[in-house]
Amino acid sequence: MSAHIIDGKAFAASVRSDVAKDVQSLKQKHGITPGLAVVIVGEDPASQVYVRNKVKQTSEVGMNGFHFEYPADTQEEEVLQKVHELNNDPAVNGILVQLPLPDHMNETAIIEAISPEKDVDGFHVVNSGLLATGGKGLVPCTPLGCYLMLKDHLGDLSGKKAIVVGRSNIVGKPMAQLLLDASCTVTIAHSRTKDLPAEVAQADIVVAAVGRPEMIKGDWIKQDATVIDVGINRIPAPERGQGKHRLVGDVEYATASENAGAITPVPGGVGPMTIACLLKNTVTATYRQNDIKK
Amino acid sequence: MSAHIIDGKAFAASVRSDVAKDVQSLKQKHGITPGLAVVIVGEDPASQVYVRNKVKQTSEVGMNGFHFEYPADTQEEEVLQKVHELNNDPAVNGILVQLPLPDHMNETAIIEAISPEKDVDGFHVVNSGLLATGGKGLVPCTPLGCYLMLKDHLGDLSGKKAIVVGRSNIVGKPMAQLLLDASCTVTIAHSRTKDLPAEVAQADIVVAAVGRPEMIKGDWIKQDATVIDVGINRIPAPERGQGKHRLVGDVEYATASENAGAITPVPGGVGPMTIACLLKNTVTATYRQNDIKK
Ligand SMILES: NC(=O)c1ccc[n+]([C@@H]2O[C@H](COP(=O)([O-])OP(=O)(O)OC[C@H]3O[C@@H](n4cnc5c(N)ncnc54)[C@H](OP(=O)(O)O)[C@@H]3O)[C@@H](O)[C@H]2O)c1
Ligand SMILES: NC(=O)c1ccc[n+]([C@@H]2O[C@H](COP(=O)([O-])OP(=O)(O)OC[C@H]3O[C@@H](n4cnc5c(N)ncnc54)[C@H](OP(=O)(O)O)[C@@H]3O)[C@@H](O)[C@H]2O)c1
Repeated sequence: MSAHIIDGKAFAASVRSDVAKDVQSLKQKHGITPGLAVVIVGEDPASQVYVRNKVKQTSEVGMNGFHFEYPADTQEEEVLQKVHELNNDPAVNGILVQLPLPDHMNETAIIEAISPEKDVDGFHVVNSGLLATGGKGLVPCTPLGCYLMLKDHLGDLSGKKAIVVGRSNIVGKPMAQLLLDASCTVTIAHSRTKDLPAEVAQADIVVAAVGRPEMIKGDWIKQDATVIDVGINRIPAPERGQGKHRLVGDVEYATASENAGAITPVPGGVGPMTIACLLKNTVTATYRQNDIKK
Repeated sequence: MSAHIIDGKAFAASVRSDVAKDVQSLKQKHGITPGLAVVIVGEDPASQVYVRNKVKQTSEVGMNGFHFEYPADTQEEEVLQKVHELNNDPAVNGILVQLPLPDHMNETAIIEAISPEKDVDGFHVVNSGLLATGGKGLVPCTPLGCYLMLKDHLGDLSGKKAIVVGRSNIVGKPMAQLLLDASCTVTIAHSRTKDLPAEVAQADIVVAAVGRPEMIKGDWIKQDATVIDVGINRIPAPERGQGKHRLVGDVEYATASENAGAITPVPGGVGPMTIACLLKNTVTATYRQNDIKK
């Protein structure tokens, strides 16, 4: 049996198209254009690419994008000042400070300075607390993307046995919260887990967020399980030529596809969902800030 | 084999005695007497008993206790006003608003009005967020008590397989966070869990917080597992006389004791730890508010 391949690119496009409709309706019915502000400090090349994509997709869905670039040696105070300004700007509904920040800055202090209502990355402690207690906050984009893919593919998740491998604040932990909220029986595994193969083998849903190339083996996967591979690992690919690389996930894709009922590929699975969910969060924030029911 | 019975009453006494030493040292070295303020609205009889115990134990460890009682028909505004006052009172290091509040009050609004640094119940959204992300907040008392008992009995928890049955914001979810922080592999189960016996049977650590008398059967418990029974259920006990009741936990104690390596009884297990941890949280809050390292 070969697994259904969950097409993250296509699904992200459909999420963006729903966002575009919401933006259209906010403009026409309420005269509001959602605005997303991105603050970037320094010249981290990966961040630059990511931010360029954000800017492009923001305008494609009809939102306003505001883009602030600072040199790497900017003082923390200046960035905090900008965050305060954006908090108070009614044209800005979402604020994202691109991480990582240069070493001399206190990342936590800057994230906590963002108004929780505009924290579209979902990293503010108030949003973590709301997610942890079933409140209505903003949810980190990557796990939100995984969750939407699971819902889209499986429908009701209630009672399913899920495992999340990885317990980072950005992916693993919020992912576990979302699955628990959806009434899965959730296991969280990590580097200290004793028998990971046995844990994975029980799960109807496997979310891998480890950052180790293909460490989750195909023969661990339960028959017909749904596998969401968050990992993005760059490994040497000499077969493509000297010095070449390719991307693989945290799951041994070729073999896992034989057991799984459905699986996300890397690239083209979870990856494209992150920005789509950022835009979705920005629209959600706009609705809430203006007290408009969707 | 018969399980070791974890004596919560004795352990709570030892926690309180450590707290008393801290209080003594804060007084002598820093001239600070920790203060705990308890706000109670209405005449819920269970709350009254609980609050009386708090007041008694607060003074026994040498802390100042401040006690504010309001009639059930008090306006929310008045309670909020008191909370603000206590937030600004340097003699008050911990604030606890006894739940449940009367129906006309917005419980969330009142809890969120407490300064997170003084929220010794650990229910403020900022404290939930800090717990969820590995930050340094104040942790809800009952799960903190369970955690301390586990550490005391087992030492290092890293790599142990734990199950938490129940996912309330007050017990189950924060308990799971604490076990995850201690590097257990954590499973969270609840009413939608498909095969609870099989889940429980795998666990080295079982925390039951369900609220259903003896629903976790003894023969589900893995040999030598450690069982923490949070449940407090009042059931009819005609054998003690007509109309009499007794307390039982969520675990079938008599049979579970045969498999478990250690188990908390009900009553006398987790119960006594809750107030001890409230006092502990108040001392922790006092240290932090005064920027004193212990
Ligand atoms: N847009 C996207 O698609 C997107 C977004 C974010 C991240 N990612 C990718 O997702 C992956 C994870 O990201 P992250 O930020 O969550 O990483 P992270 O912060 O490094 O966390 C990795 C987690 O994996 C666990 N782990 C490490 N080795 C393990 C092992 N041998 N067995 C079991 N667990 C192990 C770690 O456990 P301990 O806690 O015990 O150390 C940790 O909890 C990365 O490949 C990253 O590039 C993709
Ligand atoms: N000081 C103390 O010792 C102390 C403090 C607090 C609480 N307690 C006691 O601890 C118990 C739990 O308290 P709580 O506030 O957490 O209760 P709660 O809010 O009622 O939560 C009960 C949890 O148990 C789950 N559950 C219900 N039936 C179940 C079933 N058949 N199988 C598996 N799970 C089931 C529920 O699942 P769903 O979420 O799916 O509904 C829910 O998550 C109570 O007995 C309470 O008296 C003691």
